[in-house]
Amino acid sequence: MANANMNCWPLIVIGGSSERSQETMGAFQEFPQVEACRLYSKFSARPSSIEAIPSIIEKAVRSSIYGRPGACYVDIPADFVNLQVNVNSVRYVECCMPPPVSMAESSAVYMAASVIRNAKQPLLIIGKGAAYARAEESIRKLVEQCKLPFLPTPMGKGVIPDNHPNCVGAARSRALQFADVIVLFGARLNWILHFGLPPRYQPDVKFIQVDICAEELGNNVRPAVTLLGDINAVTKQLLEQFDKTPWQYPPESKWWKILREKMKSNEALSKELAFKKSLPMNYYTVFYHIQEQLPRDCFVVSEGANTMDIGRTVLQNYLPRHRLDAGTFGTMGVGLGFAIASALVAKDRNPGQQVICVEGDSAFGFSGMEVETICRYNLPIILLVVNNNGIYQGFDTGTWKEMLKFGDATTVAPPMCLLPHSHYEHVMIAFGGKGYFVQTPEELQKSLRQSLADTTKPSLINIMIEPQAMRKAQDFHWLTRSNM
Amino acid sequence: MANANMNCWPLIVIGGSSERSQETMGAFQEFPQVEACRLYSKFSARPSSIEAIPSIIEKAVRSSIYGRPGACYVDIPADFVNLQVNVNSVRYVECCMPPPVSMAESSAVYMAASVIRNAKQPLLIIGKGAAYARAEESIRKLVEQCKLPFLPTPMGKGVIPDNHPNCVGAARSRALQFADVIVLFGARLNWILHFGLPPRYQPDVKFIQVDICAEELGNNVRPAVTLLGDINAVTKQLLEQFDKTPWQYPPESKWWKILREKMKSNEALSKELAFKKSLPMNYYTVFYHIQEQLPRDCFVVSEGANTMDIGRTVLQNYLPRHRLDAGTFGTMGVGLGFAIASALVAKDRNPGQQVICVEGDSAFGFSGMEVETICRYNLPIILLVVNNNGIYQGFDTGTWKEMLKFGDATTVAPPMCLLPHSHYEHVMIAFGGKGYFVQTPEELQKSLRQSLADTTKPSLINIMIEPQAMRKAQDFHWLTRSNM
Amino acid sequence: MANANMNCWPLIVIGGSSERSQETMGAFQEFPQVEACRLYSKFSARPSSIEAIPSIIEKAVRSSIYGRPGACYVDIPADFVNLQVNVNSVRYVECCMPPPVSMAESSAVYMAASVIRNAKQPLLIIGKGAAYARAEESIRKLVEQCKLPFLPTPMGKGVIPDNHPNCVGAARSRALQFADVIVLFGARLNWILHFGLPPRYQPDVKFIQVDICAEELGNNVRPAVTLLGDINAVTKQLLEQFDKTPWQYPPESKWWKILREKMKSNEALSKELAFKKSLPMNYYTVFYHIQEQLPRDCFVVSEGANTMDIGRTVLQNYLPRHRLDAGTFGTMGVGLGFAIASALVAKDRNPGQQVICVEGDSAFGFSGMEVETICRYNLPIILLVVNNNGIYQGFDTGTWKEMLKFGDATTVAPPMCLLPHSHYEHVMIAFGGKGYFVQTPEELQKSLRQSLADTTKPSLINIMIEPQAMRKAQDFHWLTRSNM
Amino acid sequence: MANANMNCWPLIVIGGSSERSQETMGAFQEFPQVEACRLYSKFSARPSSIEAIPSIIEKAVRSSIYGRPGACYVDIPADFVNLQVNVNSVRYVECCMPPPVSMAESSAVYMAASVIRNAKQPLLIIGKGAAYARAEESIRKLVEQCKLPFLPTPMGKGVIPDNHPNCVGAARSRALQFADVIVLFGARLNWILHFGLPPRYQPDVKFIQVDICAEELGNNVRPAVTLLGDINAVTKQLLEQFDKTPWQYPPESKWWKILREKMKSNEALSKELAFKKSLPMNYYTVFYHIQEQLPRDCFVVSEGANTMDIGRTVLQNYLPRHRLDAGTFGTMGVGLGFAIASALVAKDRNPGQQVICVEGDSAFGFSGMEVETICRYNLPIILLVVNNNGIYQGFDTGTWKEMLKFGDATTVAPPMCLLPHSHYEHVMIAFGGKGYFVQTPEELQKSLRQSLADTTKPSLINIMIEPQAMRKAQDFHWLTRSNM
Repeated sequence: MANANMNCWPLIVIGGSSERSQETMGAFQEFPQVEACRLYSKFSARPSSIEAIPSIIEKAVRSSIYGRPGACYVDIPADFVNLQVNVNSVRYVECCMPPPVSMAESSAVYMAASVIRNAKQPLLIIGKGAAYARAEESIRKLVEQCKLPFLPTPMGKGVIPDNHPNCVGAARSRALQFADVIVLFGARLNWILHFGLPPRYQPDVKFIQVDICAEELGNNVRPAVTLLGDINAVTKQLLEQFDKTPWQYPPESKWWKILREKMKSNEALSKELAFKKSLPMNYYTVFYHIQEQLPRDCFVVSEGANTMDIGRTVLQNYLPRHRLDAGTFGTMGVGLGFAIASALVAKDRNPGQQVICVEGDSAFGFSGMEVETICRYNLPIILLVVNNNGIYQGFDTGTWKEMLKFGDATTVAPPMCLLPHSHYEHVMIAFGGKGYFVQTPEELQKSLRQSLADTTKPSLINIMIEPQAMRKAQDFHWLTRSNM
Repeated sequence: MANANMNCWPLIVIGGSSERSQETMGAFQEFPQVEACRLYSKFSARPSSIEAIPSIIEKAVRSSIYGRPGACYVDIPADFVNLQVNVNSVRYVECCMPPPVSMAESSAVYMAASVIRNAKQPLLIIGKGAAYARAEESIRKLVEQCKLPFLPTPMGKGVIPDNHPNCVGAARSRALQFADVIVLFGARLNWILHFGLPPRYQPDVKFIQVDICAEELGNNVRPAVTLLGDINAVTKQLLEQFDKTPWQYPPESKWWKILREKMKSNEALSKELAFKKSLPMNYYTVFYHIQEQLPRDCFVVSEGANTMDIGRTVLQNYLPRHRLDAGTFGTMGVGLGFAIASALVAKDRNPGQQVICVEGDSAFGFSGMEVETICRYNLPIILLVVNNNGIYQGFDTGTWKEMLKFGDATTVAPPMCLLPHSHYEHVMIAFGGKGYFVQTPEELQKSLRQSLADTTKPSLINIMIEPQAMRKAQDFHWLTRSNM
Repeated sequence: MANANMNCWPLIVIGGSSERSQETMGAFQEFPQVEACRLYSKFSARPSSIEAIPSIIEKAVRSSIYGRPGACYVDIPADFVNLQVNVNSVRYVECCMPPPVSMAESSAVYMAASVIRNAKQPLLIIGKGAAYARAEESIRKLVEQCKLPFLPTPMGKGVIPDNHPNCVGAARSRALQFADVIVLFGARLNWILHFGLPPRYQPDVKFIQVDICAEELGNNVRPAVTLLGDINAVTKQLLEQFDKTPWQYPPESKWWKILREKMKSNEALSKELAFKKSLPMNYYTVFYHIQEQLPRDCFVVSEGANTMDIGRTVLQNYLPRHRLDAGTFGTMGVGLGFAIASALVAKDRNPGQQVICVEGDSAFGFSGMEVETICRYNLPIILLVVNNNGIYQGFDTGTWKEMLKFGDATTVAPPMCLLPHSHYEHVMIAFGGKGYFVQTPEELQKSLRQSLADTTKPSLINIMIEPQAMRKAQDFHWLTRSNM
Repeated sequence: MANANMNCWPLIVIGGSSERSQETMGAFQEFPQVEACRLYSKFSARPSSIEAIPSIIEKAVRSSIYGRPGACYVDIPADFVNLQVNVNSVRYVECCMPPPVSMAESSAVYMAASVIRNAKQPLLIIGKGAAYARAEESIRKLVEQCKLPFLPTPMGKGVIPDNHPNCVGAARSRALQFADVIVLFGARLNWILHFGLPPRYQPDVKFIQVDICAEELGNNVRPAVTLLGDINAVTKQLLEQFDKTPWQYPPESKWWKILREKMKSNEALSKELAFKKSLPMNYYTVFYHIQEQLPRDCFVVSEGANTMDIGRTVLQNYLPRHRLDAGTFGTMGVGLGFAIASALVAKDRNPGQQVICVEGDSAFGFSGMEVETICRYNLPIILLVVNNNGIYQGFDTGTWKEMLKFGDATTVAPPMCLLPHSHYEHVMIAFGGKGYFVQTPEELQKSLRQSLADTTKPSLINIMIEPQAMRKAQDFHWLTRSNM
């Protein structure tokens, strides 16, 4: 349910429930649905009558987009469907106004600017909240005007293009670990950011939190400054400070040097892996070739374990709100739904825009049947299944060999693995799309080129990789544990 | 988690949750899972320590199988996985005893027998509870000794074989509508049995309820007699009454005559439909041919709308607990999980036994990717997708034609339909199983014969049927509305 | 809501909620009440219309009294109160039948009888469930016929009169600790019975559980035999066994000797305390004098810590279902409500019957204002407030003296104490009842005599006792910790 | 738990729960308390260990005072109390910073000022949110600078003194009904403000909502302007607008004339009722005499039906956050708790300050026993029980007389009434405070004077009024229905 003139996308689930007159009698699919949705939604309600539907929908839409965005649930009993209603008794309700915008207190903005000015090793972290707030222009201006290094969170990618010279994504762990001032734009200090705590951070790092949600401020860490308000509006307030008294972080500082060196060595490492000639391919080879052909304006959807984690570091986003992945909750199975939603938006707003959906083979298994929907509506989606036979990342070669003793891999699959050599491309072929099975860089290049060129049909490229393909080694053991 | 020597299958879901020390901090997949499972389970808990796991599991297993069976949830935080525990501090807990058995009050049993003896138009309804209680022998004895007509509910099928001469399944609506005494063996008067209310029943019909759950007794209807207890034990108590004072319902009664005539005419109608030569096939033709080859001892799993409803009337069960379908809740997406579970039981207990899983195409879409699991473990499952292009039953030809005006069916799918001509068999081929696409009775016969014969691989038969294929017309309009 | 001809008392809470048309608008006292009651009730629902009220009430009543009894909640929105309804559209619903009765499996009954016969140190525990099941006659017969020692739980008191020669209540800890076979009649192995675990029990004690609730069987301990069913019916089944093959436990056994000696010494100890002349009085003196005058047929209601615990050991019950106390949950504040409910039953069924409500002063504070209700309806209730100035039992003299250093007891009350010398009798006087302030045994005797004699008005006797009055010392330290 | 230097009062409930190791075993008062508190709190959690307590408390405190304030629940299991903890393993957590302040978008502020400038019949409504935000100075400045009429909500009273010349409380219904622009300062359009809908408001009234909570904006009515932010900060933003371009609403406008006339006639009516000589007294007489002696700086606490409603119109508040009543939820029983809390604050911050607690007799019954607490801590509280024998407001003389037919009022109390002539003052006397029973204005004056003068003890004045004492008649019938 879009609200065109406000650029907001409320998330409302409308659920059908059983006939009211049969409640407590054992009706078909009778269940306390409103109650069951409570923990999962900002607002969960059943209209008390048909006449009340408009105002309940208005409230659900409004609750979904005002304040921190979230999902809402509206329950429609089966008997509503055929009920007659006197049109005059329905209270007409206009759609709500665009979400109200709030700004931070001026003194806090002043203090934040001052802390930034005094930072020795500053870092901006751009979160999903910045993307939701459509703060791309203001944050970019801040980054460029003050020459600050920045790091996007998974879904903050693209608020500023990943290839921006100030993006230090390739030195993420280093940047987090040694920054002395970190400004969070709509990014939460949850597991993805290692809670903001040592050893992943300096014990005395100063956080400046910019967030729309008051209750988020101060979570896990006592921030130096909190800026409560709309992230775009607050960023503009910060910019005003730096307009009044211009300042920029010295581009030749030791901090920039450290970060650039680390980025360089990390990128060299990635390239080395990407250019390995051995087959089956490894993750870096695969993502390198995908990135080569990735249209600048495409949506990138992704889910999986290594597939999502490594893919995120290689695949570039150039536009805000064009990356959708498993997100904070790490829920598998959302990929194809996200791809479909993106494609519908693309079709509507920007015909010709494509959706690249990069799936781990295990993740694809959660909702692979949505390929039928993709084909039914003939959506401009290219599915890439990075297929390591379902081996979970923590699974090492030794264990794998140990398990094979119990039988050959074709007949006795180890418990944490999927069937080797699954031909996921057939799932696409089943519904009339194009399917490719690729084992070499050349096959990958070619099939991707064809898929991008022929926009008359969706396609799925099943990319076989080395089952034991692992991530790059990390400097410290504890950097491997969590894997944003 | 089976309990071999008690023939009980507790249903325990073990869920992993986030590290306890990170709770409230925004941990990976942090959620109040125990609370979220409350509405869905008989018992939902997190052990307070590793030491407490055995007793929590014991309680979950026991709660699941004692009294009315149900699912239980046990939550295991991530940090438990690597935690050390002193073996001596763990309280060893034996597995619980088999479920306690209770019997009905003797006077109520006497009264029930007396009501049955005086019935003019008696009917037994055999529910899922009778199957759970393993009451097949005692109920069969009662049916045969007293020569009573019986009707199974969807998952009560097979407690007595469907082809038993006293089974009046083919005259279901008639039997319900005119019976004057109905004995419910573990069958609930919910929507599946039309709440036990007129016009589907005589206003003065006398219900005798046999159930393990006291709170179930009296739901929607005031019963004439209630027999609280284990269904097998109570049936034996009834048999004792009829042993003491033998009685049988006259096989030449008018009631039997009415039922037999209705069965005959219904079966003739079904056969007529089944033998129609026109293509695409209709439901009855398809099920007729499946039934012809159905192994007597196979598990029949089914889900869908018409597919499940019509299939249930044609496909016969000869063994108790060998039919699993969407059940009371009518949840789509359970079919492949049920098939996998059945196949694991079969492999373990009765090698060679097969599972026939009859899916509507829409239902298959909910969890079709489980085909990967089926192939990975090479399970003896034959999937039959009855493919009417996703047309929902309520969808009539007029609407269909109306919708086609907006575009041809290939490019513009109507909102309630799936993609026409989906080749679901490719989903099986993708994972190494056998796939068949069939459009004629001959192709169906042949592919099913091959699938049954070659037990080295699972197979999927994609059976194309007439999209507007409808159910048989009913005598009364209101009989069509609900569709057990 | 009584159900006269079934001797059952359903517990239904009818709650008023806000107008349905104002839901989600911020209506007066708007709250999801049905949902909020879920955790506290067996059945919680709002009728979907006025027409549905009868069937919802029927279901609530039935759910409350069928199976294990429990509370139910029915929600009535404000707009129902003035809504018009077509009388013909209301489905008339008869009151449900009396609760169905179930019996235990014959083989389990046989096994239980056999375990009892072979017991060396048997013990029967009579719980609240036995009282609910109205099993008094059958259990008494079993006790007397087999000459078995028994112990009532708090609300199992009176099923057999406390002064029955086989009652070993005065040797409770000893009986639990050394019994080798324990039969539980509707008593749960929860904290009140120390979970059935050592050191309060022999590690190899054999439990025979008689209970109406299958899921209760096996909690915390793996029982030797489980008898699922109505406790009265099951006890009769046991009696049949002992009728067929008569057996009695030898009255001159060593076990009886041990128990009788322990009872004798405990009773001597109690008497010694009761006859202490020092003032203020102690608990035993107070309860001794109350017991002296207690009408045989009165209801005894009680709540508090020491007041309830010690009172329970001294005050005798001679009738089943005539003791109501804080129960398993140990909730304070229920006393006056219980007293009012008992008095209404007494007024209705047995005019002249009185209610004695023995309250700790702290407990009285939770709902003392209910005295207004007592006076308004002029109920036959005598409130006894055992007033130790709110000192909680765990509070020792040392601490008390320590706290007094911070000020004198009148002006600076210690945090865990109440105001010393509160004149609770004035709360009764405020509403026209009779109030007494007593400090000596003579005053207590006299005021109680007057209260019992003058039935025209309720009365409250405020009984001052020694603030540091403690319980009898226990043989073992761990016996003091929990205090049923 | 006060946070002295931030003037914030977090509301945290710490609950004790049963021992973790006994969970699911039937522990003493075992219950899923965290889950049970979910619907009632902003944050509900149990620390996973003793070490986690500081951070959980910090989060609870912060959640309680950041954003819209609310209650939080922290659960402490019994076993924590005696558990040892290594001090070094406890993560020290500083108290959170004062709540972050946000401001409204500048353009919205500009628009709001412009709507106000163009208003023909403007009205400010000052809600509880304005009191919480400590916006008294800024709002007063706005009122005086722009010469605008204002109306406080029940707990918004005192933000500007009730006797301010611009307060139009005495013409409340008129003001709401005919205003064309209404600015809401932290006041919700819930039942108390009749949802902002006709006929209580003009259909085209323009609302300007100032609120800290985004999701509150737009509830029930589509506002003309929304100002999201801290109410004090936003009011200052509005003032800036009126500083830049000064404007004031003409004091001689027709609107002011209408309001002043209505206030005059209403006040005359109230005075007429207040000066009635007949006995028993009516509400207005009672409140008139209380108001006469009310200390300017006292806390006024109140609950009841007519008592609270009429009292609110007569009793004046001169200080913000000095009125506490049943509030939005209309919960009875909160009065004495509020009085105790106020008295503790007063004792701490402003010795000599008194608390006047005006209770309906029915409301007093909910928690009257708290008088013990008041006396124990000797708190500076004067309780006034306005005693109409528990007659609920909707109860008319006819019904009353009808009910008396069933018996005389002393013995047979009508179901909706309390005991006539209850001497609530004895409840105070019971605990050593001073009690007064007053029936005439002179007695009321005298007892109140004594109570205010003698601050060594709390007192309770039981004020007998006419049971059928009613409210003033309203201009329209529908004005009587809801009774803020």
